[in-house]
Amino acid sequence: MSELKKLINDPLKVADELVEGLVDAYNGECVHVGQRSLALKNIPDGKVALLVGGGCGHEPIYHGLVGKNLADGAACGDIFAAPPPGIVLEATQAVDKGKGVLYLYGNYAGDVMNFDIGAELAEDEDIDVRTVLICDDVASAPPTEKQNRRGVAGLVPIVKLVGAASQTACSLDELEISAKKACLMTRSIGVSMSPGSIPATGKPTFDIDADKIGLGMGIHGEPGVGEIPMTTTDELVPQMLDYLFKDFEADEDVAALGEGDEVILFVNSLGATTMMELLIALRKAKQILSERGIKIYDVIVGPLVTCQEMTGISFSITKLDDELKQHWNMACQSICYTKLEGAQGA
Amino acid sequence: MSELKKLINDPLKVADELVEGLVDAYNGECVHVGQRSLALKNIPDGKVALLVGGGCGHEPIYHGLVGKNLADGAACGDIFAAPPPGIVLEATQAVDKGKGVLYLYGNYAGDVMNFDIGAELAEDEDIDVRTVLICDDVASAPPTEKQNRRGVAGLVPIVKLVGAASQTACSLDELEISAKKACLMTRSIGVSMSPGSIPATGKPTFDIDADKIGLGMGIHGEPGVGEIPMTTTDELVPQMLDYLFKDFEADEDVAALGEGDEVILFVNSLGATTMMELLIALRKAKQILSERGIKIYDVIVGPLVTCQEMTGISFSITKLDDELKQHWNMACQSICYTKLEGAQGA
Repeated sequence: MSELKKLINDPLKVADELVEGLVDAYNGECVHVGQRSLALKNIPDGKVALLVGGGCGHEPIYHGLVGKNLADGAACGDIFAAPPPGIVLEATQAVDKGKGVLYLYGNYAGDVMNFDIGAELAEDEDIDVRTVLICDDVASAPPTEKQNRRGVAGLVPIVKLVGAASQTACSLDELEISAKKACLMTRSIGVSMSPGSIPATGKPTFDIDADKIGLGMGIHGEPGVGEIPMTTTDELVPQMLDYLFKDFEADEDVAALGEGDEVILFVNSLGATTMMELLIALRKAKQILSERGIKIYDVIVGPLVTCQEMTGISFSITKLDDELKQHWNMACQSICYTKLEGAQGA
Repeated sequence: MSELKKLINDPLKVADELVEGLVDAYNGECVHVGQRSLALKNIPDGKVALLVGGGCGHEPIYHGLVGKNLADGAACGDIFAAPPPGIVLEATQAVDKGKGVLYLYGNYAGDVMNFDIGAELAEDEDIDVRTVLICDDVASAPPTEKQNRRGVAGLVPIVKLVGAASQTACSLDELEISAKKACLMTRSIGVSMSPGSIPATGKPTFDIDADKIGLGMGIHGEPGVGEIPMTTTDELVPQMLDYLFKDFEADEDVAALGEGDEVILFVNSLGATTMMELLIALRKAKQILSERGIKIYDVIVGPLVTCQEMTGISFSITKLDDELKQHWNMACQSICYTKLEGAQGA
């Protein structure tokens, strides 16, 4: 029922109007740029800039991650669509302060194509651009092909860490290394119980039986590991986390997660799944991590990487070292995620 | 469909398990107290304490508003049910540091009865208790009977302001005055398009026709001003804000909202209504406030006062003066709402 009762105006103007509203939500901290981008006001001269972006309809990401000690700007596409190259260029020009721009976004074919063309246009304007793709969804390809994975909810801790790193990075090279590390250390797995809808048509984004869960399903309903029977939180969460543990184990580029390790744990709702359910899932995840001697350094919980009224959850784990902890501890503020300096309970 | 696919364990243990998960989400900042309460660790001796509470199922409120410069503790009821007096007493004892405890919660008969009994039990233990009820829903009673109004989303800015005031309040009297002022200055109006469901039964919390909006509907589906045809954002938002403007005008205890006034604007989702829709509604609200010369000092936007997968939005406006601005500017951190020091764009 709810997909028929979206509170919008013209279905074809949804992306433009929400970006206007987003700039209003920033209440003077951000400016609207060009066709459909936004950028922080007062980016310091000489700062290595961080640009994020992607399709609209997944709010509060990506464009809600523009903010203090986070991304400097975002290039926004239409609903579930990559930003066109012209929009990427406008956003790039708005955030560039002479030290170049790092593009950091989720690995989807349309985004890669358009951001790459945008980068070429920017290079023509003598702006140095580098790209790091977020490929955190372990269900979308095996560790040996991890560069082909989709980008999902891990983008929140990743952009938070890279945004912090960008405040002190001396060069685009240095920021690229920080971004690659944050991506390498972050893995996600999601499930979905029911689809969201496309605002312009009201049609569901995918089909799933009423008694099934899509295990490893992507944020638009892309197929994952397979469908399993609907079950309880305490049955599902261990299965989900096992995919993450096994992935850290199987990947030669990173050490397995074990006793004494510290992690950021992010429990995300895909939309209509309630905070109530997220907290019950977090409770089980905490038990499992504790049994393995893995310490939760900080928690993120909420509906931050969504696909309209889709139901489902995802877990993202970022394995920390001293450098990442230092970047984590920096305060940040945005529509999507805000934290004070330090770590919880520290 | 989604109401049948809640990701939970035992439907009758949902409240207990989510409060456990909430304490895990605080990751060391809060402790679990007694049967179903939580309290900040390390509340300073001699602090005038602030206790919130209410039924579970509306996450992230109320209990997600425990935090730094916010509430010191929360007494949690079962799903959509007031906390029993014994739980209120346990929470009161946990937060009391010798200067008494202010109860600040939404005006619902069950909550009032149970918190009042809890207060009597606490007085028997020589703990001084005062109560301020949140009655911000302008659709639930006229200005002349405003003490009978329900408490809805306005609780977020109210608890934020009172939590800040509690950091420096010298006495329970002083904090009570601050709380009454924050409540007086805060008004809300909500609409709903479709119900949430009761986790234990999967049954919807109310019925509404597919082509109607419940104008002024409460957060559990309580009747409001009436039903209107489903419409667009730009048609609906002016109607909603007019109720707030007229209420400030009609109330003899507060000046009308007008040119030069500064406000906190909170755009809330009742659950499954997306951040996309909230931002489009914020865009229209900003236009309307600007036309009236009312300045938005800060914005809150998100699904913070929810009723499961209910769809709908609410607007809350808090009119500021210098004292309230000073309290607003204080940083705060919790699962529900976090901000850095200062105001946006300032």
